[in-house]
Amino acid sequence: MATAGKVIKCKAAIIWDVGQLPSVEEVEVAPPRSHEIRVKIVATGICRTDYHVVKGIFANIDYPVIVGHEGAGIVESIGPGVTCVKPGDKVIPLCLTQCGECSCCLSPKTNCCLKNHLYEPIQNLMPDKTSRFTCRGKQIHHFLQMSTFSEYTVVPEASITKIHNDAPLDKVCLFGCAFSTGYGTAINYAQVEPGSTCAVFGLGGVGLSVVIGCKVAGASRIIGIDINKDKFTKAKELGATECIAPQDFKKPMNEVLVEMTGLGVDYAFEVTGNIDIVVTALKSCHLGHGTCVLVGEPPAGAQFSVEPILLLTGRKLTGCLVGGWKLKDAVPKLVSDYMNKKFNMDALITQTLPFDKITEGFELLLAGKSIRCILLF
Amino acid sequence: MATAGKVIKCKAAIIWDVGQLPSVEEVEVAPPRSHEIRVKIVATGICRTDYHVVKGIFANIDYPVIVGHEGAGIVESIGPGVTCVKPGDKVIPLCLTQCGECSCCLSPKTNCCLKNHLYEPIQNLMPDKTSRFTCRGKQIHHFLQMSTFSEYTVVPEASITKIHNDAPLDKVCLFGCAFSTGYGTAINYAQVEPGSTCAVFGLGGVGLSVVIGCKVAGASRIIGIDINKDKFTKAKELGATECIAPQDFKKPMNEVLVEMTGLGVDYAFEVTGNIDIVVTALKSCHLGHGTCVLVGEPPAGAQFSVEPILLLTGRKLTGCLVGGWKLKDAVPKLVSDYMNKKFNMDALITQTLPFDKITEGFELLLAGKSIRCILLF
Repeated sequence: MATAGKVIKCKAAIIWDVGQLPSVEEVEVAPPRSHEIRVKIVATGICRTDYHVVKGIFANIDYPVIVGHEGAGIVESIGPGVTCVKPGDKVIPLCLTQCGECSCCLSPKTNCCLKNHLYEPIQNLMPDKTSRFTCRGKQIHHFLQMSTFSEYTVVPEASITKIHNDAPLDKVCLFGCAFSTGYGTAINYAQVEPGSTCAVFGLGGVGLSVVIGCKVAGASRIIGIDINKDKFTKAKELGATECIAPQDFKKPMNEVLVEMTGLGVDYAFEVTGNIDIVVTALKSCHLGHGTCVLVGEPPAGAQFSVEPILLLTGRKLTGCLVGGWKLKDAVPKLVSDYMNKKFNMDALITQTLPFDKITEGFELLLAGKSIRCILLF
Repeated sequence: MATAGKVIKCKAAIIWDVGQLPSVEEVEVAPPRSHEIRVKIVATGICRTDYHVVKGIFANIDYPVIVGHEGAGIVESIGPGVTCVKPGDKVIPLCLTQCGECSCCLSPKTNCCLKNHLYEPIQNLMPDKTSRFTCRGKQIHHFLQMSTFSEYTVVPEASITKIHNDAPLDKVCLFGCAFSTGYGTAINYAQVEPGSTCAVFGLGGVGLSVVIGCKVAGASRIIGIDINKDKFTKAKELGATECIAPQDFKKPMNEVLVEMTGLGVDYAFEVTGNIDIVVTALKSCHLGHGTCVLVGEPPAGAQFSVEPILLLTGRKLTGCLVGGWKLKDAVPKLVSDYMNKKFNMDALITQTLPFDKITEGFELLLAGKSIRCILLF
C-alpha cells in the first residue's frame, strides 16, 4: 500500500492516566519493525479489562496507553521477516502470543507462550521495549501488544493470526479475547462433558461465552449467577438453564448451589475477577471431583484463602488464559466454526457504534447495559 | 469361632486425652452389630496421623480413643447382614469407606464415599454413634472406624476388604492407608506420565510411597525434599533421583526447584501437612500445566493464601484422599500387585516391634528414626 514504510496519522483513543476514560486523539503510528505487522483495525470490542486499565488495577502498566484488545482488521504492511501474513489479509490480533518456538509453544500441554508480555516487568511496549505510537510528541504505550483502540496499530508476529477472507470483522473481532476465552475455557480447557452441571459466576461477555461453551459441550444444567438480573434474559437465550442473583438469598451462593445440585456442580467458572468469589466457586464444586476454573483476573496483589480440606476431598482448582488455546492456531478454526454455524455468539454484541463514540460505549458497559459494544472505524 | 457373639478382652493402646501417648490397657471389645466385622489384628503400622491425635490437631475427635489405621488381620466374627467377608478371611481395614451404594461410590469420578466418617460432626464412633470398646467401665472412642491399635477391633462393612490368603500381613498392613495413599496419588490420582519431573515434599512413609509411585509411573526426575537428610538414602533407594534439604538453600524451595528444572516440575506432591508448604509446592509447578497435589493433612482450620495468577497461568491445585482409590476394590489388587512384585515397598518398614513396645515405636517416629514401625500382636 501507499502508506507502507511511512508514519500513518490516524484516530486512536488514549488513556492519559489512571482514572481517565480513553479520549479520541490523532496519533502517529510508525511503520512495523522486524517481525511486526501494521494492521488497519476495522472493528474492536470494549471489554471490562480495558476499563481495568482506566481504574489502574493491573500491575506493570505504564501510561499514557492505548488499550483495546478485541479487534479485527486488515494487514496494511509488514516488517522484515514476517511470513505468516501479507498486506490485505484479514487478521485478528491475539491477546496471548504464540511464538511457535518456545518450550511452551512446542508442548501440547499449555498455551502459555514464553514470549508473552505477562512475564515482562513492563508489559506494555513492543517486544523491543519501544513504542510505535506517538501523540503530541509523546510516546504512547501499547497494551497487550495489541492496542486495537487505534485505527492503525502495530503488533508482533507472535500476536496475530490470519482468518478467512469472508469473515465478518465486526463480529469475529471478539475472537481475539472475550469469546475465545470464555468458550475455550469450557470446551477446550475444562473439557466440560455432556450431562455436566455447570455454574458460571459473572454473566458479562466472557461469562456468557462460557455459557455458550457449556451448551455446545452438552451440559445438562448451566446455572448463571450475577448481581445484575438484567443479564438473565440474554444468558438464558445463550444456554443458561437457570439464573440466580446472590441478593435474593440469605445463604452464601455455594450453599445455594450445593442445595440446588445435591452435592455441588461438576464445573464452576469464576468469571467476575472478584477475589472474594474464588472460594465461593470452589465450595460450589462437587465433593470428590468438581473443578473450579478461574477465568476472571482479580486486581494485582489480591489473594484468596483456602482450607485444604476442600482440595483434599478431590476438588480441583485451576485457571487458564484465553481458554487454554494456542490462539494463532485456534482462532482461524474458531472463525470457520462460527461461519459454519457451529455456535452463534452474535447475541453477545449489544451495540455497534462509530469509534468516535467510544466514551458512550464505556458508559454503556459501566451502566450494565452492554455485553459487548463494537466500535467501527 | 468360640468367641463369636461374646465380649472379648484383649490388649489395646488408648490415648486417654490430648497430649498423652497411647498406653497399653486391657479393653473389652463388644461383638459386631449389623453390617459390622470383628477382626483380630495381626500387624499394624504407626503413622504420624496417629500422633496428630495425640497432639489434638484434628477437629471432631473425642477422647479417650484407640487410634491406629494401618492394620491387617483375620476376621474373628461377623454381624448380621455381612456378606463381603467370613470368619477366617484375611482382611485389611480401610481408612476410607466404600459403601458401594452412594452416588459417589457409583460414580467413576471419585472415591469420596458419602458414608465416610469425615462428614460426621463427631467422627470417631461407629456408624450407629456407639462404641464397641470399653475400658475400666468407660466408653472408648474409635478412630476412622478402624482402631487397629487393638488386638481385636470392630469395623463397618464399608471399611474392610478381603485380601489374598497368602498375603504377608506384617507387610500389607500398610495398604490400609500409607502406601495406598502415596502410591495411588502418583499412579492413580495424578496419573504421572512417563518422563515427568516430580517433586515430593516430605519423605515419610506416605511421601516415600509417592516416590515409589512416581518411579513405577516412569517419571524421569523425582526430587525429594525434606529437612531430615537421614531420609535421603532410603528415598534414593526407592526411586528419588535427587534429594534436597531447604536449610541448604537461601532461596525458597520453589525458586530452587524452578531453577533445577527450567520452568518448574510437572507434578508437585505436598506430603508434609505443613500449611506453609502448600503454596511453595504450587509455585514449584511448571508454568501452564504443572499440577500440585495435596496429600498431607494440615491442622484443622489452617488456611493458605494464593495469588490467582499462579492458577490463571494454567497450574492445577488439587488433592485426594487415599490416592483417590475406591479402597475396597483397589486394595486387594494392590496386594496382588505387591505379591507379583510389580513394586516393592518393604524398605518402608524400618522396624518391627511387639505391640507392647508401641511407645518405643512412637519415640522412633518422633526422633525421625522410623519410616514405618510395624507392631505385631
